Amino acid sequence: MKTNKVKSPKVSDIGESGLIRLTGHFNLNRPERIITGIGDDCAVIRNNEGKLQLLTTDVMIDGVHFLRDRHKPQALGEKLLAISLSDIAAMGGEPREAIICAMLTADLEVNWLEDFYTGLNDIAKRYNVNIVGGDTSQHPDRLTFALTLTGIVEEKNVIHRSGGKPGDLIFVSGTIGNSDAGLQIIKNKTADISEEHLEFLINSCIRTEPRVELGQVLSKSGVVTAMTDISDGLAVDLPNICRAGGTGSELIVEYIPISSALKDFCKSQNESPIEFALKSGGDYELLWTINPNGIEIIEELAKRSDLPPITHIGRLVDDNQSKVTIIQPGGQKEILQSGGWQHFSI
Amino acid sequence: MKTNKVKSPKVSDIGESGLIRLTGHFNLNRPERIITGIGDDCAVIRNNEGKLQLLTTDVMIDGVHFLRDRHKPQALGEKLLAISLSDIAAMGGEPREAIICAMLTADLEVNWLEDFYTGLNDIAKRYNVNIVGGDTSQHPDRLTFALTLTGIVEEKNVIHRSGGKPGDLIFVSGTIGNSDAGLQIIKNKTADISEEHLEFLINSCIRTEPRVELGQVLSKSGVVTAMTDISDGLAVDLPNICRAGGTGSELIVEYIPISSALKDFCKSQNESPIEFALKSGGDYELLWTINPNGIEIIEELAKRSDLPPITHIGRLVDDNQSKVTIIQPGGQKEILQSGGWQHFSI
Repeated sequence: MKTNKVKSPKVSDIGESGLIRLTGHFNLNRPERIITGIGDDCAVIRNNEGKLQLLTTDVMIDGVHFLRDRHKPQALGEKLLAISLSDIAAMGGEPREAIICAMLTADLEVNWLEDFYTGLNDIAKRYNVNIVGGDTSQHPDRLTFALTLTGIVEEKNVIHRSGGKPGDLIFVSGTIGNSDAGLQIIKNKTADISEEHLEFLINSCIRTEPRVELGQVLSKSGVVTAMTDISDGLAVDLPNICRAGGTGSELIVEYIPISSALKDFCKSQNESPIEFALKSGGDYELLWTINPNGIEIIEELAKRSDLPPITHIGRLVDDNQSKVTIIQPGGQKEILQSGGWQHFSI
Repeated sequence: MKTNKVKSPKVSDIGESGLIRLTGHFNLNRPERIITGIGDDCAVIRNNEGKLQLLTTDVMIDGVHFLRDRHKPQALGEKLLAISLSDIAAMGGEPREAIICAMLTADLEVNWLEDFYTGLNDIAKRYNVNIVGGDTSQHPDRLTFALTLTGIVEEKNVIHRSGGKPGDLIFVSGTIGNSDAGLQIIKNKTADISEEHLEFLINSCIRTEPRVELGQVLSKSGVVTAMTDISDGLAVDLPNICRAGGTGSELIVEYIPISSALKDFCKSQNESPIEFALKSGGDYELLWTINPNGIEIIEELAKRSDLPPITHIGRLVDDNQSKVTIIQPGGQKEILQSGGWQHFSI
């Protein structure tokens, strides 16, 4: 890691002009859209006619969303964009332009920032995003980033949170709870689990592959009625879908996809993997509902090796209080308490 | 002021859902453009066909860009959007949608935040901006905001920093240096000046009226070759225009528009008002160059009572080192040292 070198200058040594030069890292990945990128009062972008525009923003604060001393800067740079890419994915959209606010502490090593920007540039390239500008500022005590991402989507394909109806089937991508377990491990919680599982969980936390392609495929399938990402955790994001659509929901516990690494971790911590998975955030998987008539279309998608695993986990039901009922293997029912990734209770 | 009440709950008392409810303050001012605002993974916006899109972002950090205990929250809310409106103005654009990141300390009074949002909502209404979403997060030690604003502009009207040619005339709007003087007064620098001048300077600092209409009028005039705002100060922003266009420039000292309040302030501080004005930031006036053949068109605009004062302050010259030469009343020439509003030297 470059950041381990002792000799990196600090942010305070290179001044504002030096910091702006660092943003030269950012290649334009779709230059044909960009009339002016970094270096004017605004970025100037050629519009795509006839499509809807998407706009999302997210922040990452040292000590709240990441740990500067424990996470690799390149992975954090990737994560900053990944969070917003996941929001675009949840609307079925195509990501386009990003603009970044870097609020830097004077003691930050320039090498750290270079690695961070390298990670950001790498993920921008993978997802064809242009980084078109930003604002670099001093932050007196805490490294803080904000990023805004635009996207586009055909009007007929856009998927909101609000379209779910009683009877619709609920699906989720990937396996859930891994990211939060990884964060706990990074925060020095000892876990007596295999090296392989340890690495899997840590990687889940520091590096996210947002489900952009899956989101687009689902939005074009014609059968998805509501969608969101589960960055705040299933216990928060499923009630959001219920509230937006005026329904309740039932989750079948044994269907919820849990990785063997998470099972192993939870065993070592004497925790229930299901409870852990429900209340964890940061996974950036997609959660969506479909009209039951569309089940065959989703089953076909589930077979595709280029898409992540797709799992049926429950259904929406008639209930005007947005409740999530959990159905245990024996058939007992429990009401899920809202919780999840509440920043203000950290 | 509501914020003086002792009984306001703190941000930590009302939790994330309470904070999100506060964003109910934001009316949509052009609802016909918005398919989904706050409350989904992304905002969804109807695109304007055939126009270029503008994108800009800015941050405001307590102790760096404002003082939470000294500034009124409503004025700060206005300022957060005004900074970005000024960037849109500098391209000749029309502001459209904003998205805000609020990073809040747990001890912040909810009343303070309500007043801040009220100010933000007020200025959004004046400039027909929709606030369509955002991210609310805890910041462990410092109140921090970031805002991203979109805009649109006709391709034939967009004005870049880079179009200036030797011989072009340089203009500036309003009077300059007031904002920085106001900040110094707020920071408790005593100044032996009249109450009226004191108030004028303080108001210049906490409340900005970005030159959105002027920017649009200039962009449509057909004679403007380059434009920027002078949020970083003339000593930074004029060299930016020179560098972008590959020219130098000459400023005629006695032409630089200085308010009588600033003259009064500088006299009380034993400072040169010209030097103060050149190196001050935060004014959010526009700086532009025109082809000399267009002088009559600009003179007509200068007569309009609905636009701010317009002043000719110098010209671009042939020089590949982007130098700014200052011409003193006696004809002596000096080279302006770059400086201005350098956040990293605060």
